[in-house]
Amino acid sequence: MARDTLVDSRQEILRTAARLFQQRGYDATSMNDVAAALKLSKGGLYHHFQSKDEILFEIMNHAMDITQERVLDPVRGIASAEDRLRALIRLHIEVVLSPRDREITVMLHENHPLPPALRKRINARKKDYVHFLENLMAEVQKEVQKEVQKDARTHGAGGKVSPRAAAFALLGMINWIYQWYKPEGDLQTHNLIPQFTELIFGGIFA
Amino acid sequence: MARDTLVDSRQEILRTAARLFQQRGYDATSMNDVAAALKLSKGGLYHHFQSKDEILFEIMNHAMDITQERVLDPVRGIASAEDRLRALIRLHIEVVLSPRDREITVMLHENHPLPPALRKRINARKKDYVHFLENLMAEVQKEVQKEVQKDARTHGAGGKVSPRAAAFALLGMINWIYQWYKPEGDLQTHNLIPQFTELIFGGIFA
Repeated sequence: MARDTLVDSRQEILRTAARLFQQRGYDATSMNDVAAALKLSKGGLYHHFQSKDEILFEIMNHAMDITQERVLDPVRGIASAEDRLRALIRLHIEVVLSPRDREITVMLHENHPLPPALRKRINARKKDYVHFLENLMAEVQKEVQKEVQKDARTHGAGGKVSPRAAAFALLGMINWIYQWYKPEGDLQTHNLIPQFTELIFGGIFA
Repeated sequence: MARDTLVDSRQEILRTAARLFQQRGYDATSMNDVAAALKLSKGGLYHHFQSKDEILFEIMNHAMDITQERVLDPVRGIASAEDRLRALIRLHIEVVLSPRDREITVMLHENHPLPPALRKRINARKKDYVHFLENLMAEVQKEVQKEVQKDARTHGAGGKVSPRAAAFALLGMINWIYQWYKPEGDLQTHNLIPQFTELIFGGIFA
């Protein structure tokens, strides 16, 4: 089997498993259910993944890969911290609302306890994202404070909200979207992005 | 058995079940496990709850009761919309971080699909909370716009962030806390409350 086919079928397994886990719950879905939905034999499924925990871990890991490729990598090249934060908010919301990736990324919030070694690896990647965001918040506050001093404007120059609190606030706002978002609702990607951006920028310079 | 004892044991069952569900996962915890942890016979447990779904529903329902009693009821009596929002943010964060109630309230985020009739009842209560918050955001924006007009101050009078987006943003910020909060961390209830309050007030008047 060509490597491409292998990669494709692994991704297809993860995508199908993620969908089943969301529909029926993680524990209520068996390896047999996953195999059946993919029209694979149980042996064919075990050829790719040795356990359901491994599948869950790989789904979460893939979700972090998506975040890396579609949010962090494009953002790193942007010179101004303010523009970097604006881009991060936009790209992260787009990933969370992407119909193609939603069933993968939402699994990052699955509460099922993973074996400690696997949980550690996912948590380390989540922590890296938090730290990136926390540093970015600090840079944006610094950048804007300088401008404010130059302008001698009177309104807030930030500092009341720490970079860490701002980072967790933004992650909460974005990662909570899947709980209330409806494709037919009033709030859609195109108007949610500017509103959440305003809220964060208004908030961190309060 | 006196009614008080009944109520107490129901609450104790819910509390213990919530703890087990979080430690082991909902599906991996059996009614036998719950009974054993409470030193009840299986019959004794079924005397109170007919199924695990019923327990999960009652935990969620109890979490909404707690929110009603400890956030909504105290807030309704406050005359100024701005003070009402400040109090809501404080009280909601306190509930989420309360060591006593955390294991109950965190279960509101359990992804296990409930039977449709039960899910509908919980969702209706969650929606009521969102609407309350959305209306409150709108009132605060109106109140502050009036003050700004009187003052003829130049900075933002709100309007870029809709009450609905602001409501979901705040719920995300608060309901996400359980994902990152550590009792020994830098961010504690006493400094998290003012920071999240600043962020929301800065943000909704951007």
